Amino acid sequence: MQKQNHLIKIYHLMKPFMDENFLLQSETAQKLYHEHAAKMPIIDYHCHLVPRQVAENKRFESITQIWLGGDHYKWRAMRSNGVAERFITGKDTSDWEKFEKWAETVPYTFRNPLYHWTHLELKTAFGINKTLNPENAREIFEECNDQIKKDPKFTPRGLMKHYNVKVVCTTDDPVDSLEYHKQVADDPTMETKMLPTWRPDKAMAVEVPANFKAYVDKLSEVSGKAINGFNDYIDAIQARHDFFASMGCKLSDHGIEEFYAEDYTDEEIKAIFNKVYNGKELCKEEILKFKSAMMHIFGVQDAEAGWAQQFHYGAIRDNNSKMFKLIGPDTGFDSIGEFNTAKKCSKFLDRLNSEGKLAKTILYNLNPCANEVLATMLGNFQDGSIPGKIQWGSGWWFLDQKDGMTKQMNALSLLGLLSRFVGMLTDSRSFLSYPRHEYFRRILCNLVATDIENGEVPYVGYEEKRVNQMIEDIAYNNAKNYFQF
Amino acid sequence: MQKQNHLIKIYHLMKPFMDENFLLQSETAQKLYHEHAAKMPIIDYHCHLVPRQVAENKRFESITQIWLGGDHYKWRAMRSNGVAERFITGKDTSDWEKFEKWAETVPYTFRNPLYHWTHLELKTAFGINKTLNPENAREIFEECNDQIKKDPKFTPRGLMKHYNVKVVCTTDDPVDSLEYHKQVADDPTMETKMLPTWRPDKAMAVEVPANFKAYVDKLSEVSGKAINGFNDYIDAIQARHDFFASMGCKLSDHGIEEFYAEDYTDEEIKAIFNKVYNGKELCKEEILKFKSAMMHIFGVQDAEAGWAQQFHYGAIRDNNSKMFKLIGPDTGFDSIGEFNTAKKCSKFLDRLNSEGKLAKTILYNLNPCANEVLATMLGNFQDGSIPGKIQWGSGWWFLDQKDGMTKQMNALSLLGLLSRFVGMLTDSRSFLSYPRHEYFRRILCNLVATDIENGEVPYVGYEEKRVNQMIEDIAYNNAKNYFQF
Amino acid sequence: MQKQNHLIKIYHLMKPFMDENFLLQSETAQKLYHEHAAKMPIIDYHCHLVPRQVAENKRFESITQIWLGGDHYKWRAMRSNGVAERFITGKDTSDWEKFEKWAETVPYTFRNPLYHWTHLELKTAFGINKTLNPENAREIFEECNDQIKKDPKFTPRGLMKHYNVKVVCTTDDPVDSLEYHKQVADDPTMETKMLPTWRPDKAMAVEVPANFKAYVDKLSEVSGKAINGFNDYIDAIQARHDFFASMGCKLSDHGIEEFYAEDYTDEEIKAIFNKVYNGKELCKEEILKFKSAMMHIFGVQDAEAGWAQQFHYGAIRDNNSKMFKLIGPDTGFDSIGEFNTAKKCSKFLDRLNSEGKLAKTILYNLNPCANEVLATMLGNFQDGSIPGKIQWGSGWWFLDQKDGMTKQMNALSLLGLLSRFVGMLTDSRSFLSYPRHEYFRRILCNLVATDIENGEVPYVGYEEKRVNQMIEDIAYNNAKNYFQF
Repeated sequence: MQKQNHLIKIYHLMKPFMDENFLLQSETAQKLYHEHAAKMPIIDYHCHLVPRQVAENKRFESITQIWLGGDHYKWRAMRSNGVAERFITGKDTSDWEKFEKWAETVPYTFRNPLYHWTHLELKTAFGINKTLNPENAREIFEECNDQIKKDPKFTPRGLMKHYNVKVVCTTDDPVDSLEYHKQVADDPTMETKMLPTWRPDKAMAVEVPANFKAYVDKLSEVSGKAINGFNDYIDAIQARHDFFASMGCKLSDHGIEEFYAEDYTDEEIKAIFNKVYNGKELCKEEILKFKSAMMHIFGVQDAEAGWAQQFHYGAIRDNNSKMFKLIGPDTGFDSIGEFNTAKKCSKFLDRLNSEGKLAKTILYNLNPCANEVLATMLGNFQDGSIPGKIQWGSGWWFLDQKDGMTKQMNALSLLGLLSRFVGMLTDSRSFLSYPRHEYFRRILCNLVATDIENGEVPYVGYEEKRVNQMIEDIAYNNAKNYFQF
Repeated sequence: MQKQNHLIKIYHLMKPFMDENFLLQSETAQKLYHEHAAKMPIIDYHCHLVPRQVAENKRFESITQIWLGGDHYKWRAMRSNGVAERFITGKDTSDWEKFEKWAETVPYTFRNPLYHWTHLELKTAFGINKTLNPENAREIFEECNDQIKKDPKFTPRGLMKHYNVKVVCTTDDPVDSLEYHKQVADDPTMETKMLPTWRPDKAMAVEVPANFKAYVDKLSEVSGKAINGFNDYIDAIQARHDFFASMGCKLSDHGIEEFYAEDYTDEEIKAIFNKVYNGKELCKEEILKFKSAMMHIFGVQDAEAGWAQQFHYGAIRDNNSKMFKLIGPDTGFDSIGEFNTAKKCSKFLDRLNSEGKLAKTILYNLNPCANEVLATMLGNFQDGSIPGKIQWGSGWWFLDQKDGMTKQMNALSLLGLLSRFVGMLTDSRSFLSYPRHEYFRRILCNLVATDIENGEVPYVGYEEKRVNQMIEDIAYNNAKNYFQF
Repeated sequence: MQKQNHLIKIYHLMKPFMDENFLLQSETAQKLYHEHAAKMPIIDYHCHLVPRQVAENKRFESITQIWLGGDHYKWRAMRSNGVAERFITGKDTSDWEKFEKWAETVPYTFRNPLYHWTHLELKTAFGINKTLNPENAREIFEECNDQIKKDPKFTPRGLMKHYNVKVVCTTDDPVDSLEYHKQVADDPTMETKMLPTWRPDKAMAVEVPANFKAYVDKLSEVSGKAINGFNDYIDAIQARHDFFASMGCKLSDHGIEEFYAEDYTDEEIKAIFNKVYNGKELCKEEILKFKSAMMHIFGVQDAEAGWAQQFHYGAIRDNNSKMFKLIGPDTGFDSIGEFNTAKKCSKFLDRLNSEGKLAKTILYNLNPCANEVLATMLGNFQDGSIPGKIQWGSGWWFLDQKDGMTKQMNALSLLGLLSRFVGMLTDSRSFLSYPRHEYFRRILCNLVATDIENGEVPYVGYEEKRVNQMIEDIAYNNAKNYFQF
């Protein structure tokens, strides 16, 4: 019989928007977050901050500059909302006009992470608890700009300190001088470590011979090594790798469509190098072989240096050629691709592993369809040398939101060990993006707490301590130990 | 310590089956649905109704005819339940025998959308609140048939009026005379607009030369244009496009396995046209080039007419060749395919966009694996000209159910703007399918309300009004504005 | 306005870890499980038990042997946790040392199914309700070993009886003598049926000619049939198929990467057989044709014998070649592949169906991306001859956990008929794995009950009985009827 034995009418408490228990749906979640996650410092081990801005401790001019200066997430939302391009990336519109269009768009972003990010940033950086909309846009614009002008917190270093950031790892080309890293490292007043990350994508970008030649020549110049052929090329790269290591670099990063693991011979690679360096276009097979060789060499170099290597794969970029011509790359015209690259990924990692040269590795997928593929790929190469040697990176780019993070942490939990996860990174160009660590931690605590509440994870005695420790580890300790910061 | 501080035992109220708050799990959800969604009229902008039945306002003979006459969802369920084909599509079984087998199957469809659709239709059309099963099958059969005979509501027009349907868009071939559309449009008593949709699939179906030739000849006849070569062919198609526009057509629709975006020259296409028209089979590459050319031309035509173009991709059809020979296509032997077509989709849209000829576009995927791919594809081509210019279609076919709709709306929310979504369509052959709009709206309201309850979307002041408006917009206004009905 | 009308503060009751209502989140779920699911016996229609151990009723020596002797799930977790290989598969470490390392790892497996399996086994086999961790590891080790030594329950037959197992189907090669099956079948004291399953993977493994030749020669020997060419080969296979049938075999099983459905001629297959038998390597196309032919013949044989055929597809195996050389296959270095094989699967099934030779079929996917593909593939070949003729197998391998089972049952419910599902199997090498049936049943009951609680499935009168019956059917009756045990 349909049950009718309810004794009282239950009024669930509707949670206020984004209060101190935002995303924390049980007392256990609140306890895990407030007592364990929130107190941990931040390690932002992968981001795209501009080192020069940190070195010079750039003073921002307005909230528009911080929020809309380079944030292609917001640009996409504005375009989807029917805002004309001149109010987004145009040079002939004022900071206020752009902010106004953004404020009009905000109430159309309900359920999108931009809505949460926007208000987390207003709240944690500016102390503003209002919800931004056209009615209060001008007031909030002025309040933010006023704070930015007056408060030294609103500088790169100020914000890092405000958000308790211990380490940031920028993303840098092998030919970069790292002069700003040096300047920051030499500054005794700087409390946050800023370390470089080795991102050698251009060193295997052989699609356009002229660009590749220019890159090789530049590499020769900065390394001080003559490059006459492939072996010299690798020597020069190794010299830069050594230099990056001397500057505190602990990670590499690779932005790739797919994994490359073609068979090739050394002779073939030498010939391909000469061909492209001398201006001849390569066929598709040659490009794949060259990339396969370079990826392997990069992997060996990282293993020998004791670094961790990161692979971000699966984007399709610059889909809108009209806008690419107008405003260039990284302007909001990229999306999620469909690549079946598991076998290649396995072959790539297996070769390094067989040679005893598999570095600590972090794999990031952009298409959530590959979640279970990656979550189970890890286990193939865990070798017991260190906990969680092969990592699955936190939800990347489009997946860096509640649903994407939840799916990643759930799949990692079910198919690997959540306890050993190195956790969150911002991947951001913005100095205001650190609240995303808070966002991640709230989601993590809520997930674990839900299992506790449901009797699926114990929370007494030994296990209570272990759960608390796990939260603190994922928030901070795992990354600190894994990268050896 | 395991928490033990519960003060009272809570008895959750088990909701009765399908009451007025069906699928609405909080008071906020109930408020959003009853006060905002339910009152909005219906625009069914994509369906497969038979125009002649509307024009003639066909009187149905029995519930069997309405429910089981052409509904391959039900046929599949019956076959899965072990019902012999003669009780499904056989000619030698009575309406009652077929209904009886369906009634036996219904209690085996728990958790399948058929269970909900069946009872929503019994409730909203017939006022029957019983759950259909073998014990009451005869009684319900007779009650329905009695109503169908007596009540003029049970006609195409009666049902459209009953369900407050303002616009329906049928699916029509370019060679169709649209005579029934004209008849309906000229009838002052008809309160629902019935508009044609341009579906030119056959105009690029060059797999069987004889069929293609017959189609070209038919097109020549109805357009009154001699077709001597490809240019004439396109002229004839354009003439029909113009005719459809004059009949109020605002949309095209394309049923494709994958997106086609091969490179080709005009000379190649002309030669391919002549070859196939003259009865020679094309190789796979020629077929792909021809389809690529036609898809592009269709896109240009739609852009110039100011229409919206729809793409339904990803089905694999007629998998059971034995049954195909016996009872033909669209009989329940289709399923979800696996196509990695993101790059082609991007290339197809980019070419139109670069030429300034990208029409309003709605993309529908059948495999939910492509959800995030499509949700992020939209943003590549949003140009700010109108809100939500590029749309991701509501859960299609197998995905037209609670889980499919939920995933689509969640991914759209996270990766785009839910606020600008043009919402639900039935894609149905049945005049009884309008409660699916109700189903969709309940799910939408519950999703948004859950976020409000959890403190993830604000619901006070400005934002309360915006949420309410968003619900009304997705239910009706967005489609009305987008299609300019 | 943000709602504030809560009358009382609600303290949710935190469920204790793994109590009698583990995974059952409502009273309805508890009723369905305790009154209907729990009482049903077990049919474990697919597993990898060693028949000899059952025949000899092997006495285990320690909990380490049972738990860590061959369980590559646990091995993977230990490697991920940083445990050195010698404590996992090494020969120079003691049972206690290995158990200790496992006990250290266990608290790092929160949210992984291993945590639940471990404690379900401790609880249901040993009556131990403690949570295993380093502090109590020695105590639990000794308690388990003590019970194993003293209690005859801790034998293969004892455990099968303890867990109420009526039928187990092992996995056997066509050349296997089935002597242990015979010995068990002839033993009147054995209460559980142990039936063989036909797994002819090696009969189409033509990648290494020498291995294939050895297999053909062995087949010739055990079948007593001279093999001079392909026709003889098939005759010999058929003889073994008949023998398996005489031993009670009702199922086949096939472990494949993808479905094979190439076109071929009989002449080609004969030539390929001769070529490989004579030691020549085949090209990729020949291998695919040969596998396509063999798969079709296997299917015909199964249909003619009235068996059910099972297909497990989608794994990529032995990814770590270094460890493969050291410790061989099935040691924890396999993972989920990415295969788009829907069209091939359809073509394979369609050919058999067109010839009237499509046996009862169970499809298992390893990549959850294919869930909806398989769930909709079934319907293409349901022919009404028996309910649920084409089945989608329960969550396999990496998907054999709460999330994987939930997704499989949800997709099956939405796209097919959950009511007709043949339910759970362990696919296990361990005699302690039967609690996974309990795990599955709890999840099933909770899913159905949640829909009831939410008013999405009715639970009064006729429908209440039907729901109860559905639970019992999926737990036991469906498998019994489907396989005709």
